[in-house]
Amino acid sequence: MTQTTQAPVSRFPVPALKDMPEDIRTRIETVQEKSGFIPNVFLTLAHRPDEFRAFFAYHDTLMEKPGNLTKAEREMIVVATSAANQCQYCVIAHGAILRIRAKNPLIADQVATNYRKADLSPRQKAMLDFAMKVSQSAQQVGEADFDVLKSHGFNEDDIWDMAGISAFFGMSNRLANVTSMRPNDEFYALGR
Amino acid sequence: MTQTTQAPVSRFPVPALKDMPEDIRTRIETVQEKSGFIPNVFLTLAHRPDEFRAFFAYHDTLMEKPGNLTKAEREMIVVATSAANQCQYCVIAHGAILRIRAKNPLIADQVATNYRKADLSPRQKAMLDFAMKVSQSAQQVGEADFDVLKSHGFNEDDIWDMAGISAFFGMSNRLANVTSMRPNDEFYALGR
Amino acid sequence: MTQTTQAPVSRFPVPALKDMPEDIRTRIETVQEKSGFIPNVFLTLAHRPDEFRAFFAYHDTLMEKPGNLTKAEREMIVVATSAANQCQYCVIAHGAILRIRAKNPLIADQVATNYRKADLSPRQKAMLDFAMKVSQSAQQVGEADFDVLKSHGFNEDDIWDMAGISAFFGMSNRLANVTSMRPNDEFYALGR
Amino acid sequence: MTQTTQAPVSRFPVPALKDMPEDIRTRIETVQEKSGFIPNVFLTLAHRPDEFRAFFAYHDTLMEKPGNLTKAEREMIVVATSAANQCQYCVIAHGAILRIRAKNPLIADQVATNYRKADLSPRQKAMLDFAMKVSQSAQQVGEADFDVLKSHGFNEDDIWDMAGISAFFGMSNRLANVTSMRPNDEFYALGR
Amino acid sequence: MTQTTQAPVSRFPVPALKDMPEDIRTRIETVQEKSGFIPNVFLTLAHRPDEFRAFFAYHDTLMEKPGNLTKAEREMIVVATSAANQCQYCVIAHGAILRIRAKNPLIADQVATNYRKADLSPRQKAMLDFAMKVSQSAQQVGEADFDVLKSHGFNEDDIWDMAGISAFFGMSNRLANVTSMRPNDEFYALGR
Amino acid sequence: MTQTTQAPVSRFPVPALKDMPEDIRTRIETVQEKSGFIPNVFLTLAHRPDEFRAFFAYHDTLMEKPGNLTKAEREMIVVATSAANQCQYCVIAHGAILRIRAKNPLIADQVATNYRKADLSPRQKAMLDFAMKVSQSAQQVGEADFDVLKSHGFNEDDIWDMAGISAFFGMSNRLANVTSMRPNDEFYALGR
Repeated sequence: MTQTTQAPVSRFPVPALKDMPEDIRTRIETVQEKSGFIPNVFLTLAHRPDEFRAFFAYHDTLMEKPGNLTKAEREMIVVATSAANQCQYCVIAHGAILRIRAKNPLIADQVATNYRKADLSPRQKAMLDFAMKVSQSAQQVGEADFDVLKSHGFNEDDIWDMAGISAFFGMSNRLANVTSMRPNDEFYALGR
Repeated sequence: MTQTTQAPVSRFPVPALKDMPEDIRTRIETVQEKSGFIPNVFLTLAHRPDEFRAFFAYHDTLMEKPGNLTKAEREMIVVATSAANQCQYCVIAHGAILRIRAKNPLIADQVATNYRKADLSPRQKAMLDFAMKVSQSAQQVGEADFDVLKSHGFNEDDIWDMAGISAFFGMSNRLANVTSMRPNDEFYALGR
Repeated sequence: MTQTTQAPVSRFPVPALKDMPEDIRTRIETVQEKSGFIPNVFLTLAHRPDEFRAFFAYHDTLMEKPGNLTKAEREMIVVATSAANQCQYCVIAHGAILRIRAKNPLIADQVATNYRKADLSPRQKAMLDFAMKVSQSAQQVGEADFDVLKSHGFNEDDIWDMAGISAFFGMSNRLANVTSMRPNDEFYALGR
Repeated sequence: MTQTTQAPVSRFPVPALKDMPEDIRTRIETVQEKSGFIPNVFLTLAHRPDEFRAFFAYHDTLMEKPGNLTKAEREMIVVATSAANQCQYCVIAHGAILRIRAKNPLIADQVATNYRKADLSPRQKAMLDFAMKVSQSAQQVGEADFDVLKSHGFNEDDIWDMAGISAFFGMSNRLANVTSMRPNDEFYALGR
Repeated sequence: MTQTTQAPVSRFPVPALKDMPEDIRTRIETVQEKSGFIPNVFLTLAHRPDEFRAFFAYHDTLMEKPGNLTKAEREMIVVATSAANQCQYCVIAHGAILRIRAKNPLIADQVATNYRKADLSPRQKAMLDFAMKVSQSAQQVGEADFDVLKSHGFNEDDIWDMAGISAFFGMSNRLANVTSMRPNDEFYALGR
Repeated sequence: MTQTTQAPVSRFPVPALKDMPEDIRTRIETVQEKSGFIPNVFLTLAHRPDEFRAFFAYHDTLMEKPGNLTKAEREMIVVATSAANQCQYCVIAHGAILRIRAKNPLIADQVATNYRKADLSPRQKAMLDFAMKVSQSAQQVGEADFDVLKSHGFNEDDIWDMAGISAFFGMSNRLANVTSMRPNDEFYALGR
């Protein structure tokens, strides 16, 4: 596997840690300490410090704030929609996070390939049906979609969360595909 | 036209200005002073203050920072990709901004309907071809796309900007469609 | 905006008024008198006099004969389906007519971008759902579609009218895209 | 096969010959004399006399006027595009006419199924590539398409003809699918 | 029609009968005796003897074993799905077989063009709806599809048969398109 | 992970080993000895012994016979096309085999998500471009595709192999989706 270790993180320039603005370097060092490595999305976006800051502020509020959707469920949304958008970085990195959050080594590959056949509850499949509609044909979303979700016990704020996560990672998927953002080798085996 | 003035800004709750956090209220009041009205995207997103802050931080860095793409060109990207995503708010609001920035009352409707037939330079059409590919099939973007753009005089940073704007408004389009965010009546005639 | 005034009406030759057959010249002069300008569709199709005659005979019977669909509703069908077909001429010219017929300066841009979010009645949205299905996947139209329309109070003749208008402008959209038929500058601001 | 002979011509009412306007009845009787039967498109459209007149005026000018495209080539366009639109009436009726015009019992089924593999010249395949693009994505037609056609010896008027036929039958296909217009039993074996 | 008789059976090499393995030559000679000609699929696949053997073993078990689906119904599945995949060989060869099995000279062209408008029972249309879903979007098949089929009287084994035939001919369609497998001239008129 | 161990292998009945025909039971026992477990495709298809035999005969000739495509390259085709068809069983089971054959723990997830960004040679990407075209739009395959492959050093037999594998697994993907064939838990971690 040594052939891949030198592969570029991004097709755009990646600044050295020491050349990054203080706040960005600190954020990255904190992640590195916690994870044992620097996920490449941090290095790729550091090329654009203001976009880096806005991106992670948005990311954190969607993925980490309190709410009815569990952290594993939020990651399911990321994995399912990122697979539809063929985003290698997001499927592989968030697949790892999903395995860890769900304490389930199988779930990420199932959701990435065909969430309709994954080991999920009907409620979770309804959540993913909606997140996928937001991702692939949001112009057709209407009150009937809200009604289905409510019949599964979701409330209005849960629905905003689903839409927000699907929409945000739709952006992220496009950036990752344009930058050829490479998933770190470490993600592949995490949580298996 | 009085029938439309009471139509809801968003299908989600919109807080009163006085109940908003200080920084958000200030930002909105500044916009209101400058524009003469409050664009509904500010009111819609104020339902989620942290998302509001991240959204506009991201928006501003993409749309207002210095760079080779003119402000009108950035708006062209917004209008073309938002039309492909059938986002009423973004096409109508940013169509108005495009007319103003380009000092051209015709250009927004042309770009929204079929940018290939709009009064644009070949360089601008190449920019929109790329922004549309990022919007609709980013998984297929590759070095050949970069080469075409460079043959039109764009550099790597311009390309990142195009991708960033296309991806960000792809997110915005999905949020607007899910929230049924209504374009303000004022936008329709601006710049005509 | 002076840059656009010399843009060609059509990528095919456009005959001089004086060289046109009598009946065609008369028709055009009548329109010009009424509208104050000659819509470019008349000039573009005058390149083919027999097609001109058949086209406008068809157009007039669909758009101007008595029937339950109001003239504004017929124009809604034109605008929604022409937007789906990305026809600049039809969206911009018939958008103007729609604004005038509906006495509503907002409706055309709403319908063109996403009719599902436009200020329309449920009955009008059902009409546009059907017209769009005829436009985009007529092979799947069946009795169930007729039943939905009848539940909104439409009769068989109304349904034929919707189908006819959608189908006719599908033809017109394709001709306009192939000829690069240019919307007259006058249309953009009409009825706003 | 007796089960099919009573199947309705159209899901809409079909007037009796004797109740039709004189000119329409005459046209139909002329066709009947020549063909030995009345093609159902005449009966279906007779429900709407003005549309009948405009439809056949348009049809005749496109399909029967002089020009570089042979009559068989015009029918190839009809068959290929109608198959893409899944129009039973047009594929089966014009398939018969194509077999007769081309004096080739195989060509219609080949063109209907996959014209790229049919017994056609490269020039004819280029014609069908263009007609199919007009039929399926006219918004993307541009000068590059014209250049390809010209490299095969087509001139500007030929290209208009191709576009006109493709666009007109796109309308016809939609009408036939909405009316469930039934191909006459006679067409199936003609020219085989 | 002499121009077509020398057209190649396949764009890949076709072995001479005498050079084929004994079992394959025997199979082909049996077919030839029965049909009066050698269907080109036998000659095309003889280029790969092991694939030939597996292909026809699979074919025979799906198409000829006992079961509730009539032989004509199995051919309907082949014709409808092969038309969706634009496979000239399968539509034309199995169209002939369908005409013969159904003793109906019209049915094959109807099913190939738009099975929704063909002279079929509602039960048969439900069968084709399912076979088409397997062919075009099998990833979305679920228990709801099984329920619809059961409401028409199909059992689980019938459903497996439909899926098997649709899937097998999906493979066959792709092989025929890649090899440019030519339908024998004899098929076009059989059973008309 | 105990929650998944009782999940059904297939939504159709699975026979007990002892009730299977001798040859099928022997084949399965051989696989089990070699792999340490019985891949569920064997159990699922054992419901239909004749289809089982034909399926594996076809599979073996495509995947195991000598040829220029390496075994890892054949598995790349399976993984890329099965991901496009959203087939959970094939992506997960053949992903494991690909990791083993390629001695590369990263390659399967990369190829499944977006092969264009995977650690592959240009030659291998050309192979997958073709296999994906066969899988998704075989009707458009033509000599130009063969020319591209030859420019990468592939010969005619290699191309047949690519097409055969893509087409065969297209069938397999559809069967797995209809039967809800479950990937064995063992596959997920193999070769990582």
